[in-house]
Amino acid sequence: MSQFTDLDKLAVSTIRLLAVDQVAAANSGHPGAPLGLAPAAHVIWKQMKLNPGDPGWINRDRFVLSNGHACALLYAMLHLSGFDFKIEDLQQFRQLGSKCPGHPEFELPGVEVTTGPLGQGVSNAVGLAIAQANFAATYNKPGFTLSDSYTFTFLGDGCLQEGVSSETSSLAGHLQLGNLIALYDDNQITIDGATNVSFTEDVAKRYEAYGWEVLHVANGNEDLDGLAQAIAQAKRSKDKPTLIKITTTIGFGSLQAGSHSVHGAPLKLDDVKQLKTNMGFDPERSFVVPQEVYDLYNTQIIQPGVQQYEAWTKLVQEYSAKYPELGAEVQRRLAGDLPRDWEAALPVYKPEDDAVATRKLSEIVLQNIQATLPEMIGGSADLTPSNLTRWKEAVDFQPPASGLGDYVGRYIRYGVREHGMGAIMNGISAFGANYKAYGGTFLNFVSYAAGAVRLSALSGHPVIWVATHDSIGLGEDGPTHQPIETLAHFRALPNMQVWRPADGNEVSAAYKVALTHKHTPAIIALSRQNLPQLQGSSIEKAMRGGYVLQDADNADITLVSTGSEVSLAVEAAKVLAEKKINVRIVSLPDFHTFDQQSEEYQLSVFPDNVPIMSIEVLATSGWAKYAHESFGIDHFGASGKAPEIYKKFEFTPEGVATRAEKTVAFYKNKQVTSPLHKPF
Amino acid sequence: MSQFTDLDKLAVSTIRLLAVDQVAAANSGHPGAPLGLAPAAHVIWKQMKLNPGDPGWINRDRFVLSNGHACALLYAMLHLSGFDFKIEDLQQFRQLGSKCPGHPEFELPGVEVTTGPLGQGVSNAVGLAIAQANFAATYNKPGFTLSDSYTFTFLGDGCLQEGVSSETSSLAGHLQLGNLIALYDDNQITIDGATNVSFTEDVAKRYEAYGWEVLHVANGNEDLDGLAQAIAQAKRSKDKPTLIKITTTIGFGSLQAGSHSVHGAPLKLDDVKQLKTNMGFDPERSFVVPQEVYDLYNTQIIQPGVQQYEAWTKLVQEYSAKYPELGAEVQRRLAGDLPRDWEAALPVYKPEDDAVATRKLSEIVLQNIQATLPEMIGGSADLTPSNLTRWKEAVDFQPPASGLGDYVGRYIRYGVREHGMGAIMNGISAFGANYKAYGGTFLNFVSYAAGAVRLSALSGHPVIWVATHDSIGLGEDGPTHQPIETLAHFRALPNMQVWRPADGNEVSAAYKVALTHKHTPAIIALSRQNLPQLQGSSIEKAMRGGYVLQDADNADITLVSTGSEVSLAVEAAKVLAEKKINVRIVSLPDFHTFDQQSEEYQLSVFPDNVPIMSIEVLATSGWAKYAHESFGIDHFGASGKAPEIYKKFEFTPEGVATRAEKTVAFYKNKQVTSPLHKPF
Repeated sequence: MSQFTDLDKLAVSTIRLLAVDQVAAANSGHPGAPLGLAPAAHVIWKQMKLNPGDPGWINRDRFVLSNGHACALLYAMLHLSGFDFKIEDLQQFRQLGSKCPGHPEFELPGVEVTTGPLGQGVSNAVGLAIAQANFAATYNKPGFTLSDSYTFTFLGDGCLQEGVSSETSSLAGHLQLGNLIALYDDNQITIDGATNVSFTEDVAKRYEAYGWEVLHVANGNEDLDGLAQAIAQAKRSKDKPTLIKITTTIGFGSLQAGSHSVHGAPLKLDDVKQLKTNMGFDPERSFVVPQEVYDLYNTQIIQPGVQQYEAWTKLVQEYSAKYPELGAEVQRRLAGDLPRDWEAALPVYKPEDDAVATRKLSEIVLQNIQATLPEMIGGSADLTPSNLTRWKEAVDFQPPASGLGDYVGRYIRYGVREHGMGAIMNGISAFGANYKAYGGTFLNFVSYAAGAVRLSALSGHPVIWVATHDSIGLGEDGPTHQPIETLAHFRALPNMQVWRPADGNEVSAAYKVALTHKHTPAIIALSRQNLPQLQGSSIEKAMRGGYVLQDADNADITLVSTGSEVSLAVEAAKVLAEKKINVRIVSLPDFHTFDQQSEEYQLSVFPDNVPIMSIEVLATSGWAKYAHESFGIDHFGASGKAPEIYKKFEFTPEGVATRAEKTVAFYKNKQVTSPLHKPF
Repeated sequence: MSQFTDLDKLAVSTIRLLAVDQVAAANSGHPGAPLGLAPAAHVIWKQMKLNPGDPGWINRDRFVLSNGHACALLYAMLHLSGFDFKIEDLQQFRQLGSKCPGHPEFELPGVEVTTGPLGQGVSNAVGLAIAQANFAATYNKPGFTLSDSYTFTFLGDGCLQEGVSSETSSLAGHLQLGNLIALYDDNQITIDGATNVSFTEDVAKRYEAYGWEVLHVANGNEDLDGLAQAIAQAKRSKDKPTLIKITTTIGFGSLQAGSHSVHGAPLKLDDVKQLKTNMGFDPERSFVVPQEVYDLYNTQIIQPGVQQYEAWTKLVQEYSAKYPELGAEVQRRLAGDLPRDWEAALPVYKPEDDAVATRKLSEIVLQNIQATLPEMIGGSADLTPSNLTRWKEAVDFQPPASGLGDYVGRYIRYGVREHGMGAIMNGISAFGANYKAYGGTFLNFVSYAAGAVRLSALSGHPVIWVATHDSIGLGEDGPTHQPIETLAHFRALPNMQVWRPADGNEVSAAYKVALTHKHTPAIIALSRQNLPQLQGSSIEKAMRGGYVLQDADNADITLVSTGSEVSLAVEAAKVLAEKKINVRIVSLPDFHTFDQQSEEYQLSVFPDNVPIMSIEVLATSGWAKYAHESFGIDHFGASGKAPEIYKKFEFTPEGVATRAEKTVAFYKNKQVTSPLHKPF
């Protein structure tokens, strides 16, 4: 006998029409997928653990709408299940300032991650599942299951075509993430028409190859029992993620059903009306929710969820009594606080200390702080021995059955999957519990992950890229590996820290600021080659993003630089001193942090009346914000020994000094104003 | 009986040692993969159609080393097969200025594409195979097989883990590219150690799911016959690409064989010696090629290749006699020339013509020129009706058996695979025959393809991105779809045109310049919303990258802008005129092209003594090269109706005018110098 009644069917119709009405009111949006997916959404919700009174409850089940364009469906579900989405909000779908924007945004209650760019959501879901597995392995105790939540995700053909989902799905299979359940909307339609124009692969077989459990619901439009059985079976699959292929009709019930014209354009008025009539609704009314549907959601979904929440709250109290240390740690993490004095472990350097590559200095930081910060969960896209991202005692995050590690492990072997790593880090961060995710690759290959990095910044996920081999200084690997445009790119991204520390103190400062931030991601660009410890650097100064490393009376020029070129500026200043040119030196490890300092402080770093020249072995673009002139590399690099490449491109003390001299001469007898002054 | 003799084994040993010696001489590089793959390389070469005297021969077989770090192997093969790689060149492996850089570069003779960033090469190979299929379908005639070449590629675990290869492999299977043969170096090792730490999927099954033929050679270290049989079978697979999994031992023969330590570091001296001794070579000598190996390559590879080349040359002559028009077209394309007067088809607009979205104007260009330019081969990453990239009469590039098109078709349904599209376009371009590949997506999602775009620029593949929905002007889809940092990113990339045309004439100019360039890719950023045809624009002016749209006597300010904001500048100028502020207006559709104009011309556009303010609804970064002040958007966008978003962010005539007034006031009584003046 079916576990579903006519009331469930009414609820499904209500969901369908709420989505259609939103798109119609906006005269913009995507009605097709919600019409096909409403039954699956309803069935998932009926067994979801959630509490609208605490959307951040750490043991809630998560739902990620990877095909974010179908968000009218999500807003309908959040409305019905008691989250802070009123009918009036739904009526403002896609309007400026509305709570229902054109794609779901992370900061909204009940929205787990920002989706829209295809392939990201399902990849975030892998990150959520990793975090859940780690959190459970770390804190669950016999009789105290603090964490046993699932991550559900909807994804469409587009998500499956994107490479990022291939990367993360392969890894999810490897990691045996049984807590991950993906529902694939097999509606055979994309914007270009039928999927057979470009997408004829056997998706089920591919996911089996990844090590997933694959199920199929043939009539996703109507078969609520089939959907429920598939979900139950997926939950029983403890050591494999599950892909449930649900065959649906895009725009089900619409006159345009099964056509790509229903994907991304509102239904015509008469179509909306016939849909309502056929579903037994008044064709003249919109945004209608029958009271019995509200009652169903209240009694069958919200109330049970709240009960589970209350039981869980009680459990955590008992847990804290029995395991006071762990309990305190859980409470701290849930509050989003770092441990007191964690930063005491950050190393401090003196000028007489050895010259060390900043990637190595980064390794020392990670080594020093990992024990204090159980929320730190790191990895590398298969460059561990180059990125130096793994601390000595690290346990790999691996399925216990593999014999290679455990879910309690905090080091992730991402494989050669930069974009996937970025999207997974976003998911880990979105899980909560203060997770601090970091991932290593070469700076140049952070660009592979640009789609995910952008979403870190937009969503405010404070993930950290450990981006080593940050310039031509990597040497022999040549121009395919040497970043040029990369810093300009990410510095132009809003809400993004882009650190390029010059020495050990600056590396410590970069981590200190990046780990403290709650809503800003960071890229930390690190050298392959050794760099000296600088006279004049300190963690405190560097934490301001930029500071005067070396001041001068009657300065003729300010040289501003980052990373490996700061010590070059110091050397150039010596050459210039011989020519009676007085040089101030500014180190500017992070533009974003510097921009948040007071105007007064900023002007003390870049005062009037002294011309400013920047030095960085990457593209000059973006530097004019601080410097009158820029010495950089606006062409591609070269393969060879690093010192020879530096010499070829004239990044030597003499090469810098020559340009500084020209800059001084150029501005002689001119009125020199700091670039920081702006008319608006 | 084996078709291989002891001489072949000697050749394989020679190849192995040439690779090892290069890495040893450089004391840098990757000896592991060459040691494992040398047999496969030798077997492929023995049946490859090539002519070292004409590396660009259009009907040569192509070989792409997707695992580009193994390039010591490639240089060895090119040396043996008579390309312009001398032993002295190999001895300079990874040295500055050498012909043997750390990763293979496109401009080198016999190197088909630049590889190194993983996943790109195999994806380029898909593009090469597409181009070959199209070229053959277009020009082959009964008795005149002008094109029947194969594309071979080596790829490793890393290439398979990258999402871009998943995208392109799925498409290659869909397209039934029987001319593509990929050899997967299954050596079970990546930099992080054994592949089982992150990569336990069933690769063979995955590729079967994509629709590929999958073969296996169990002993890739030694089984030359097995390799040859697999390749022969792959060639017989006419309607499927083939993946040959060759199980090898990384660093085969070395004391470190099978370990990740042999992946990316030179062998120790005693290891090199034992390797040479075991192979019957003098342990004290390096870079040794026995004469009989040269002879083998000469008689069995080079001479047969040259004979095929000569036969082909004769065939083309006969073809040209029998099909004079097609013959002339082939000759023109092989010469890399565009048809005479092709640009006559570019539309010209007058100010009184209708306001039209530049994406629509782009569609008109494509429609007008497609018949004249058979080398144009375009597509979209599943946004055809939004990008407007398909001309009316277009035939889809599809396998004939699909019933959806034909290989003679020039419109590619890429699916939702932006990165794959970018890499495939590079491959199509690298094929030769003057192919002009373009691909459509939203501007914001060009970032997904950053890895491939970078290689377009580095290699000089003149591909074109038709990048519509280029700003907040796209409206309701919101911040996940609205580019902010995107133009700053790609403008900072060397050798990259980034067009943002303001009207019909500028769209025509963008295509004219982009299609004429032989070594520079282009992004053409296009609006979703309608834009007026501008007074003062022309194709000729816009072809300079920047020009004075509207001059003024005694100008108080120069407003410089691109795309949708140029007409806004015109409106703002009217507001300012009422306040007696005289405004010059500059349109700057492409920085890269403008930078190539004479200094005199550039200074005529941005003269001294007039403050310059830029206006663009994207990040301001990069604008300081031309403007003293910038009005832009250095935060994320918003979901809503486009005009409301413009208003919210004050991109209105009044909002621009206010900032222009402040700029004028700020620079009053100051000496104003054009930002184009530079001390060095």
